[in-house]
Formats: sequence, C-alpha cells, structure tokens
Amino acid sequence: MKVGIIGLGLIGGSLALDLQALGHRVWGSSRRPETIHTALESGVIEAYFPIGSEIPQDTDLVIICTPIDGIIPTLAQIVAYLPPSTMVTDVGSVKSPIVTPGRALWHNFVGSHPMAGNNHSGIKWAQQNLFQGRPCAVIGKAGETLTDRIGELWRSVGMEVYFCEAEDHDRAVAWVSHLPVMVSAALNLACVQEQNIPVRILGEKLASSGFADTSRVGGGNPELGRMMAQSNRAALLYAIDRYQEVLAEIKEQIALEAWHELEALLQNAHHLRQSYCN
Amino acid sequence: MKVGIIGLGLIGGSLALDLQALGHRVWGSSRRPETIHTALESGVIEAYFPIGSEIPQDTDLVIICTPIDGIIPTLAQIVAYLPPSTMVTDVGSVKSPIVTPGRALWHNFVGSHPMAGNNHSGIKWAQQNLFQGRPCAVIGKAGETLTDRIGELWRSVGMEVYFCEAEDHDRAVAWVSHLPVMVSAALNLACVQEQNIPVRILGEKLASSGFADTSRVGGGNPELGRMMAQSNRAALLYAIDRYQEVLAEIKEQIALEAWHELEALLQNAHHLRQSYCN
Repeated sequence: MKVGIIGLGLIGGSLALDLQALGHRVWGSSRRPETIHTALESGVIEAYFPIGSEIPQDTDLVIICTPIDGIIPTLAQIVAYLPPSTMVTDVGSVKSPIVTPGRALWHNFVGSHPMAGNNHSGIKWAQQNLFQGRPCAVIGKAGETLTDRIGELWRSVGMEVYFCEAEDHDRAVAWVSHLPVMVSAALNLACVQEQNIPVRILGEKLASSGFADTSRVGGGNPELGRMMAQSNRAALLYAIDRYQEVLAEIKEQIALEAWHELEALLQNAHHLRQSYCN
Repeated sequence: MKVGIIGLGLIGGSLALDLQALGHRVWGSSRRPETIHTALESGVIEAYFPIGSEIPQDTDLVIICTPIDGIIPTLAQIVAYLPPSTMVTDVGSVKSPIVTPGRALWHNFVGSHPMAGNNHSGIKWAQQNLFQGRPCAVIGKAGETLTDRIGELWRSVGMEVYFCEAEDHDRAVAWVSHLPVMVSAALNLACVQEQNIPVRILGEKLASSGFADTSRVGGGNPELGRMMAQSNRAALLYAIDRYQEVLAEIKEQIALEAWHELEALLQNAHHLRQSYCN
C-alpha cells in the first residue's frame, strides 16, 4: 500500500517505521519543518507532502496522527485532494467527537484508537514495535469491508483489535485511560501539600518505583490531558464521581479502624486488577 | 560478618543472596517449613535456626524481614538468645511503632526501611540486586556508630541511604508510598462501578500500560496495604484528605470547562513529578 501519515510524533513516527518494515511506501506530513527534516533524514518517511495541497493520487490510506483537536481540521484540509477510494483513519483517544464529523467529511473514514505510547513525545522517540501486543479500538462492526481493512492495518503492526461503537469506546476509556490520568495527576499535586519542608524533601528522596508508576500518567503531556478531559467530559466526570465515592469508602474504613473491611476492599482491588491486567 | 535473616520472603531472600555474594555468612529463619526448605535447597541461606531458641553466638547482625506486625513479636522472642554486641535492624515500612519498642527491647536496635520490591512476594522471587539504586531510610543520625554501620549495610547492597527520625519517615512515606496504594486501589475498585457490562468488558480489553502502572500498587498484597494503614493511620488520613481536595479541584475545573486552569494544574503535576522521579 501507499500510506500517508499526517502528524509525525511518537505515534505517527513509530507507525511509519512499522509500515515501512512491512513493505509499505510511506509519505508523511507535519506542521513543524524540523519534524519533517528529521523524518526524511532518518528515513521514517520516504517523501513529504504539505497539508492542504496535492497528495500522491495512488495513496491507499491516510492516517491522521495529530493531537485530538487537530484531527477534524486536518481532515477538512485534505478532503479536496483525496482520491475517492482513499481510506482515512485517525489515532485520537476520544472517538464520538471525531467519528461523526469525520464521516460527514469523508465517506471512507473509520476512527481508530491504538492504545500505545510511553512517557515520551516527538519523532526522536519513534521506534519499531511500539504497537506490538497492545489493544486498538476500531469504530464500527467487524464484517464491514472498510472497518475490516482498518482492523487489518492495526493487526499488521501487532495490535489486538476490538471493534466497538464510538460512545462505548469513550465510556470505556474514561475509566481505563482518562480517569487514571486525573487520579495520577492529583497524586503529584497532593504531595506538595505537606507543609513541613524537610518531610517533603525526605518524601522526594524516598519515592521509589511504586510512586513512579502511580504518578506516571498524571505527569505526562498536560495538553493531551486537557484535550482528553475536554473531548470526553461527561464520561470522565461520571468516572471521577464514582472514584471519589470509592476513595471516600477506603478513607472511612481507615478512619473507623475497620481493618477487616479495609483488607476486604484491598483484596477486591487485587482481584479486580487481574481482569484488567492479566 | 555473620548475618541472621528472619523472614525469608522477597525482601529477606533477596537480601540473603546479596549478602552472600558480598562474602557474608548468612543463616535464616522462617515460620513456614516450606520456605526454610526452599531457602536451604536453593542456597539462599547456609543454615537454619528456629526463632526463640539458640542462635549462633558469632552473629554480628540480625535483620528482621517479617511483615510489619511480626517485627516486634519476633524481636521479643529472640532477645534472650542474642549476644550483647549483636546489632538488630528491620525492614518495616512504618517506623515510629517499631523503633520505640524495638529500642526498649534491644539496645543495639536501629530501624530501617529499604524501599525495594516488586509485584511479587515469597522466596521463589528472591533475586540479586533487588536493592540496587533504590532509597533506604535508616532511623537515627549519621555519625552514630550503630546507625552508620546499618547505613553501610544498605549501601553495600547498592542503596541510597537517608538518615531521618521515625516520625518524619512515617509522614514522608504516607505521601509517597501509602497514599499511592490507596489511590491506586480506588482506581481498581472504581472501574467496576460501570453499570453497562459491555462497556466494562471493553474497558478491560482496552486497558493498556497507563492503567497497568496506575493500578499496580493498589492491586498488591492486601494484608500489607492494611498493615500500612493500621500502623500509619493519622499521617495517611491527612494525606488522603489533601488528595481529595486536589482531586475535587481537578474535577471542578473539568465541570466548569475551565480548560486553561485544568491544563495549568496538569502542567504543575508534570513539573512536580520531576522532583520525585528524576
């Protein structure tokens, strides 16, 4: 296939590397000249085309890998230049606000959400096999040609593909992706509420792998966190409400010195996690 | 040195391996016959002595590696058999409730808290270099002979040693160790509050590395989590209170659609994390 990737950060760049390794021809685009330079220089893409002008007419697929709020504007800029048979997908972490206008703009649009990434951002972190073994949501039903082809794309880079509706996706990721960001960000912000400075500094010294893991996603890209909340607000607020209730229950058992009940809650947390992380 | 290790789980077993690799002679003890069997068979210890009976009179150091609520009862059982010059330390994650009775029971007692571990427990996970590069609190002042010698012990297995008072230690770990456990446990418990079962199952499928990291410490050993809360109750309740305030502020910005303010909070979380995890 000939594939165009618009937005060459960690996700777009890594995807370009994997697709080239699979024998596809990959062109790319980015708003930032230095990203284009790096992508061409390092062979992440073989050619560059600016957004909003001619693109290769043999392009089979365009993957929009910009930040969430750039996806629909980018699609709007390219539709005039797309050959009618070209498929378009995206990698945004919220799907309802993207899939509806996306389909209205382009008949061959299918939304995707590859759940991959790490602490880094930018093309210099692009790497092969970033997607290997990770889950990917594809919006639509298995058995529809276009949806199946997009599913195949993600499977080809090693992902576990799940077909679902946009609304279900957004509610599900509110729990497992957006809620963790807010819960983890609050941990980073809470620790500096310690008023005794030597104790606060001692905490910094003693923070170990448990703190590092729990605080990681909340210490990530603030713009991405804000966009997640903005585009999935209702589902995220619902999840935070439920989370606050559960945390209040844990606190109550500690306050009441109800140690048996606390241990039962922690036992339940232990078991539940296994359904999510096997 | 000749070292006795009482409690041969992940921490005790791994410490025995490191100390033997450094040329020390290590005997061990455990309540569980199968642990003793495994420890002797795999060479984690070179000899076994039961708790509450004679121990080798050339033992320089005893390290109590039992769960928190076993530390003082264990010390009480061994003091009658300890040579006067033998040093004793422990690895409990809370120090005030241990150091005061510990010193009353034994003049050569110094509390320690090596901040190492992983998701596993039990001697079968014992491994060399578990402590390498991790922080360790030693209760007392640098410059006191006994405290310095215990500090040297932890440095010899690769740890960064911090000397501090028990009360400061307990407040600091309430923030960076015990609060993360409760915050993370609440995340595991909250996700099953989703009433739409297909959405809940989709969440399980889509949970990726961000969820796995944030939920990890809250999905750990429930007994250990309960004992942390029990022995550090006041400091932990204070930390949870502050955490709840911060999370409520994040939720309020999302509810108010105050996106600039939310991004500023997330930016702050991003910067603060760097002081804890550099």
